[in-house]
Amino acid sequence: MKRTTNPGIRSTLIIFIVLAISHLKATAQQKYSADWKSLDTRPIPAWFNDAKFGIFIHWGVYSVPAWAPVGKDYATYAKYSEWYWNRLVTDSSKVGKAFRQYHNNAYGPNTKYQDFAPQFKAELFDPQQWAEIFKNSGARYVVLTSKHHDGFSLWPSDQSWNWNSVDVGPHRDLAGDLTTAVKEKGLHMGFYFSLYEWFNPLYKSDVNKYVDEHMMPQLKDLVTRYKPDIVWPDGEWEHPSATWKSPEFLAWLYNESPVKNSVVVNDRWGKETRGKHGDYYTTEYDIVHNEDATKKKFDHPWEECRGIGGSFGFNRNENLGDYETSDALIHMLIQKVSRGGNLLLDIGPAADGTIPVIMQQRLADIGAWLNINGEAIFSTTAASLTASNGISYTQKGKDLYVFLTAAQAQAIKFDLPKSPSRVSLLGSNKKISYSYKGGKCTIEGLNLHPSLPSGGYAWVLKLEGVY
Amino acid sequence: MKRTTNPGIRSTLIIFIVLAISHLKATAQQKYSADWKSLDTRPIPAWFNDAKFGIFIHWGVYSVPAWAPVGKDYATYAKYSEWYWNRLVTDSSKVGKAFRQYHNNAYGPNTKYQDFAPQFKAELFDPQQWAEIFKNSGARYVVLTSKHHDGFSLWPSDQSWNWNSVDVGPHRDLAGDLTTAVKEKGLHMGFYFSLYEWFNPLYKSDVNKYVDEHMMPQLKDLVTRYKPDIVWPDGEWEHPSATWKSPEFLAWLYNESPVKNSVVVNDRWGKETRGKHGDYYTTEYDIVHNEDATKKKFDHPWEECRGIGGSFGFNRNENLGDYETSDALIHMLIQKVSRGGNLLLDIGPAADGTIPVIMQQRLADIGAWLNINGEAIFSTTAASLTASNGISYTQKGKDLYVFLTAAQAQAIKFDLPKSPSRVSLLGSNKKISYSYKGGKCTIEGLNLHPSLPSGGYAWVLKLEGVY
Amino acid sequence: MKRTTNPGIRSTLIIFIVLAISHLKATAQQKYSADWKSLDTRPIPAWFNDAKFGIFIHWGVYSVPAWAPVGKDYATYAKYSEWYWNRLVTDSSKVGKAFRQYHNNAYGPNTKYQDFAPQFKAELFDPQQWAEIFKNSGARYVVLTSKHHDGFSLWPSDQSWNWNSVDVGPHRDLAGDLTTAVKEKGLHMGFYFSLYEWFNPLYKSDVNKYVDEHMMPQLKDLVTRYKPDIVWPDGEWEHPSATWKSPEFLAWLYNESPVKNSVVVNDRWGKETRGKHGDYYTTEYDIVHNEDATKKKFDHPWEECRGIGGSFGFNRNENLGDYETSDALIHMLIQKVSRGGNLLLDIGPAADGTIPVIMQQRLADIGAWLNINGEAIFSTTAASLTASNGISYTQKGKDLYVFLTAAQAQAIKFDLPKSPSRVSLLGSNKKISYSYKGGKCTIEGLNLHPSLPSGGYAWVLKLEGVY
Amino acid sequence: MKRTTNPGIRSTLIIFIVLAISHLKATAQQKYSADWKSLDTRPIPAWFNDAKFGIFIHWGVYSVPAWAPVGKDYATYAKYSEWYWNRLVTDSSKVGKAFRQYHNNAYGPNTKYQDFAPQFKAELFDPQQWAEIFKNSGARYVVLTSKHHDGFSLWPSDQSWNWNSVDVGPHRDLAGDLTTAVKEKGLHMGFYFSLYEWFNPLYKSDVNKYVDEHMMPQLKDLVTRYKPDIVWPDGEWEHPSATWKSPEFLAWLYNESPVKNSVVVNDRWGKETRGKHGDYYTTEYDIVHNEDATKKKFDHPWEECRGIGGSFGFNRNENLGDYETSDALIHMLIQKVSRGGNLLLDIGPAADGTIPVIMQQRLADIGAWLNINGEAIFSTTAASLTASNGISYTQKGKDLYVFLTAAQAQAIKFDLPKSPSRVSLLGSNKKISYSYKGGKCTIEGLNLHPSLPSGGYAWVLKLEGVY
Repeated sequence: MKRTTNPGIRSTLIIFIVLAISHLKATAQQKYSADWKSLDTRPIPAWFNDAKFGIFIHWGVYSVPAWAPVGKDYATYAKYSEWYWNRLVTDSSKVGKAFRQYHNNAYGPNTKYQDFAPQFKAELFDPQQWAEIFKNSGARYVVLTSKHHDGFSLWPSDQSWNWNSVDVGPHRDLAGDLTTAVKEKGLHMGFYFSLYEWFNPLYKSDVNKYVDEHMMPQLKDLVTRYKPDIVWPDGEWEHPSATWKSPEFLAWLYNESPVKNSVVVNDRWGKETRGKHGDYYTTEYDIVHNEDATKKKFDHPWEECRGIGGSFGFNRNENLGDYETSDALIHMLIQKVSRGGNLLLDIGPAADGTIPVIMQQRLADIGAWLNINGEAIFSTTAASLTASNGISYTQKGKDLYVFLTAAQAQAIKFDLPKSPSRVSLLGSNKKISYSYKGGKCTIEGLNLHPSLPSGGYAWVLKLEGVY
Repeated sequence: MKRTTNPGIRSTLIIFIVLAISHLKATAQQKYSADWKSLDTRPIPAWFNDAKFGIFIHWGVYSVPAWAPVGKDYATYAKYSEWYWNRLVTDSSKVGKAFRQYHNNAYGPNTKYQDFAPQFKAELFDPQQWAEIFKNSGARYVVLTSKHHDGFSLWPSDQSWNWNSVDVGPHRDLAGDLTTAVKEKGLHMGFYFSLYEWFNPLYKSDVNKYVDEHMMPQLKDLVTRYKPDIVWPDGEWEHPSATWKSPEFLAWLYNESPVKNSVVVNDRWGKETRGKHGDYYTTEYDIVHNEDATKKKFDHPWEECRGIGGSFGFNRNENLGDYETSDALIHMLIQKVSRGGNLLLDIGPAADGTIPVIMQQRLADIGAWLNINGEAIFSTTAASLTASNGISYTQKGKDLYVFLTAAQAQAIKFDLPKSPSRVSLLGSNKKISYSYKGGKCTIEGLNLHPSLPSGGYAWVLKLEGVY
Repeated sequence: MKRTTNPGIRSTLIIFIVLAISHLKATAQQKYSADWKSLDTRPIPAWFNDAKFGIFIHWGVYSVPAWAPVGKDYATYAKYSEWYWNRLVTDSSKVGKAFRQYHNNAYGPNTKYQDFAPQFKAELFDPQQWAEIFKNSGARYVVLTSKHHDGFSLWPSDQSWNWNSVDVGPHRDLAGDLTTAVKEKGLHMGFYFSLYEWFNPLYKSDVNKYVDEHMMPQLKDLVTRYKPDIVWPDGEWEHPSATWKSPEFLAWLYNESPVKNSVVVNDRWGKETRGKHGDYYTTEYDIVHNEDATKKKFDHPWEECRGIGGSFGFNRNENLGDYETSDALIHMLIQKVSRGGNLLLDIGPAADGTIPVIMQQRLADIGAWLNINGEAIFSTTAASLTASNGISYTQKGKDLYVFLTAAQAQAIKFDLPKSPSRVSLLGSNKKISYSYKGGKCTIEGLNLHPSLPSGGYAWVLKLEGVY
Repeated sequence: MKRTTNPGIRSTLIIFIVLAISHLKATAQQKYSADWKSLDTRPIPAWFNDAKFGIFIHWGVYSVPAWAPVGKDYATYAKYSEWYWNRLVTDSSKVGKAFRQYHNNAYGPNTKYQDFAPQFKAELFDPQQWAEIFKNSGARYVVLTSKHHDGFSLWPSDQSWNWNSVDVGPHRDLAGDLTTAVKEKGLHMGFYFSLYEWFNPLYKSDVNKYVDEHMMPQLKDLVTRYKPDIVWPDGEWEHPSATWKSPEFLAWLYNESPVKNSVVVNDRWGKETRGKHGDYYTTEYDIVHNEDATKKKFDHPWEECRGIGGSFGFNRNENLGDYETSDALIHMLIQKVSRGGNLLLDIGPAADGTIPVIMQQRLADIGAWLNINGEAIFSTTAASLTASNGISYTQKGKDLYVFLTAAQAQAIKFDLPKSPSRVSLLGSNKKISYSYKGGKCTIEGLNLHPSLPSGGYAWVLKLEGVY
């Protein structure tokens, strides 16, 4: 019998099949298309929600003047030293006046911000020591300002020629050297990256060209070069995400980049995206766009970022009273985590590359506490119980963790689905008396003794088998 | 008529009488003569022994490089950043090498120490804020390096023309401005003053001329101008006190100076004087001239001085691990006071006039503790009981104070002449159970609870009426 | 039925005619197409050949170190201080070594070229005074380095953000301020502009993108903003003119730019263009691409450029012996003009904005001489007589000018087509004896007296009516 | 017979004789006593009158700002850049205002004069090259500001610790290094030395102590260390010479110092001494204490000092019009020498150690002229003939020198005691026609030709055998 199949058809079929398979493969690779609908379907890589605590670093040319006003006469944003340049030249309010008064007195009006760059020397920068400090703080990730709104990049960016840390000042790849050290310690490394640049003429005259020729190549270079696990954009508010080509970038990042499986991004991708898109949402000093974020409930991964004091960049004008205590910071961490969030706590290194020791102290205190109580923080989720009277909760598997942020002499009481099989105080073998009746669990007067190795700052009870 | 008195004899007598009266007058004014035998008879003004805790400040041109090696490979003195200049040019050991390596890398070999002076700007110096910090630390006195071994004076000294803080750098009378602020807070103000100057050509070529024309006028100017309650010499070891004319100076200070009634001086007046002469003796990092001073028993007022870390001047190379904890510092204070001494704790402000916040933190912690427990420190004396097992003692009037530097679960027991009429825990109204039998007082298991407002760090029991 | 015209065809025709007319119009406007064949047909604007003498200015960040080696051990190019950065980092020869030795000793190896920018302050820059100096030198045009190979622009170029004189250092539009002052004096203003930038990453990675996004917008901005009469490119040798898109730029410049009628350009538009294309050809220290240009005969407008000493940028290492004398410079001017060329004599202002007084002196001497003898220089052409024995010639209309660069005691003799109607010494009313016989003109022993107001340096005889 | 001489008397006699002899010896050594009457009897060492031309150097911390106002609105002294510090802080007139306006704009008001010292680097200072320049100028001596009124010394003076060129800034013994180089060239070396120091507290509070402890040891150190041939005090006007102990110093200098035989001093030893005492008298910009010195006739050796421009220290604000021409300077030299004086012409090196090339140029021009005409300058005396009509005279032995500062076409005529045996033009073998009749010598029309090797600037006729 004569076969009737036309060889042309046959080869066409073969081609078709090959194409179909490769299409499927491609589809398998190209999971996400460059639109929010698709991008929003991506599940956040698990590590981020488990990590809970990260270190934010603001470091750059602004670390040279390292100054901002302090005190309650100034609003939250007014105290950011990393806004020095902007305040100096564009702010006509009392905030700008405060900056100009300091500047003119200390440096004279003929010195401009850019003239500071050679004084950013980082001569004492020791990335291994930094990484050690971060590791010992208990943090699981680090986010460095690869480039702030001034456009100065901390790596040898081709797009920021003579306005980066290798060409001017430190003459060193700060981002690269830190990345290596941080990863060696087993921490996740990420980068803050400002989409806009206040005074970049290209940005000011033609934002599209700026995005295509400057911003996008720079951002991809950053990702390709250092393979960060977090991309933390900012300075997005002047344009919608379409202008920034954020969806295109994210499609590339999620589909093709070398970190497509591990990378996590925040929600600052355009004027309309905060709290709406991105692997996780961000709050900043408990604010989302002038709104009190503490009143928000997020069903989405989220992260609060803030300084130890009132500034992200180092502010030499801050004194002890401007810094949060270790107590307050640990309570803050508990509060965020018990609400399902992460805390990204910022430090501002000095221009010489040292981390002010008060910041080291705060991080060490947190680390010591986490060393004992970390199991109640890491890899937990918000518990169904609502925090009240200084008592907060997280849960993991079948267990509930109860945080007491002040010593409790009296008994405490709360609803529980069933009786715990065991109650213990983390870090201690002290016997804890409790009872369970009518859906209520009562813990007797704890009589917490200071010699208990609880890490200070807060005590954590572990109630096993309650879920 | 027979004249009975020879006119010559008569006039001689008159002269004798006049001389005798004027001598008596002089003796009345001039209590002390310029020799140690006489000077040593002067009782120390009471305020000093009562004060117990002072703040030492090392600030000067060395605050610009603000660097010294750290770590256990280096001896105590090797870590002093205020010795930068000396190490750089005269020290051929590994210590000097470390300094030179840092210096040449950071500044180049063509920069010399003196070139740093214009960079000592103190642009953020706020003497009122400093005084507030000192006051809140609980300290009762302040000692500022009016001039260190480099000879750079922090006041407009005529003898240090163009090598003082008014002529170069800050262009400000730092000593004067601080003195005013400190006194306004009700604290005693004193000055460290280096007798020798490493590289002063006059000192090197003709010490007598140096003393007469440079050092002595300078020291008297300091006293006359700012009326300090402490004169704290140093750098005395190359010459005996006779060469420095220390007795002459002290005779003037005790007899004629505007502070003759209140002033207190240490024991660094000549190579033979430490631990022998002076209103009080000094130890430094628990050393007296290379001897372990902790093994010494002083029947004389004394004071330990040391930094919070390993350096007196600010050392940017020190990290958290190089700083003592608040715990350790408070225990140190207790230890010195319970042995009858004072603690003069040093801070090293930065060249910009800020006090590194970690130092503010330490002082604030001590202050918070003293706020509750100060009555067991100030105006006390060493108790007859010897410290042991982490328990120390002071006494005041009929009362005994017992310091527990670690939480005590078990009962404590010690000898007492009679039963206390009352035992209390400072800062708390917790009832303390005790018993007295056979000359022994037993305090029951204290069960110290962290919510007790004891200030943390150490607990103090007051046993009333035991003497 | 008579078909008249198909409406389709009719409208096609109309469109065609409209297009044809607009094409003709366009052709009328667009005289030159973007190819050398067309561009080379453009006649040079007359002012340039008449101008003869211009001032070149090399000023920039290199004026801060302002150093290059001197002396006969170094080749011409090795002495250029404006190559400081390049020599420092890329030159492994003894030239680079000399630069590095100076640099490391004076600034230390941790200082890089870019760190110098804030020290380029121009605090004494007075553009009116500069223009006055140029005017008084007799020069008719000025060419300023708007941007040298380091990429630092002397105007607020959007393409050189934070690497231009408004953003860093002087904080002033140097190019703009000078242009205004120079034009007010009635001089032509032009700009040197480096096509390449040694270390610009965009240039190094993608020259086409560099040309499109950086170089070309920058160059057009310069032309549009300041309307220069000269565009003086350089740094063209690594690529052919096609890569630089030079023909496209020139078509725009000649057809559309605001200076299309007056602008003149040199021949540095691509590796193949020197001595071949451009309104005029250039030599540099009598060299064209390593060839001795003094042996060349140009039938095309040309210009020699060079410093007063061995460097274009200020070289603090040059002493009197390194500078040409006024005598030599005036002779140089005569030589170039008598060969049909222009002289573009360079000065190197200091970083503070002053013109070193020795340069002012040279320019004033030339100016004084031109004040008397300028008619023999400006608007002349090369005469048919060939220079010899220190005697040179120019001609204008029917007149011949004879330049004697040394005092002549003996008679001088040369061929002439006919007898002069009159011979005079410029600047003097001294009677000059001459005779004409057999096509030879003889000028008797001139006996030039120093009190003759000839301007010194060279004497000029004017022979009227010889052509 | 027994000799009756009392042994007591004998020994007394012996002692007397010994004392008498030693007194005679001492008298022989101690030619001069410390009073003007005696000091004024000292004949000036011959070399000084023969030397005629010296180089004055003003160099110091003031070379850093290197600024003073210029132009005819300002009086002579107002233009001195070396008075920068004084003008800045003590001058309330428009002069002070001009200085302050410049200073505040360029450096900001928080920078003070003393802060400039580290920027005085002298990194290009080459003493051999300086000495070469001086030698080639024809000068026979050099006078360096070892210390100006600011008190900053250019040698490691023990009395100016940390305020001298070895301790701060250049870190080099500038005075010593230059002395060595200058002496190697066979020139005499001398030092300017300011008696007073504007702001030295010791000077201001106790001039006697200042003289004894600071000024005098410093001055003697300078003499002993470098063995100068000139001591050139200044800043004497606030006190009489007795206060400065000038007679005592001079007695030491003339009797005992290592330069007692060669040293020469000026007349600035006290408010009453100018034009009265000292080896030679000084004028300054033709002024003696606000008096027009050109109208004075000195029967005593004297010297005019002045800058090439209007300032002694380098003034970056001076442009070509502010500098004297070589012509004017040579005429000035002729004028001073023909009146019996010397010219001490000042240069102001830059802070980097370079001599501004315009100054090199002026010195080289003078040197070239002296190379030919020096015999009419050096070792001459004022002639009896009075200068008039641009013609001046000097004489040496039997010969008369006639200086023509402008080219002379006509005959010149002057009185002479007898007919010259020969008349020649220096530097030339041109035959000079002359006649002598009735005590008048007539030189025929000289017809000076520019090719005559006369050195330009001025022509010198030598008339032999006229005395």
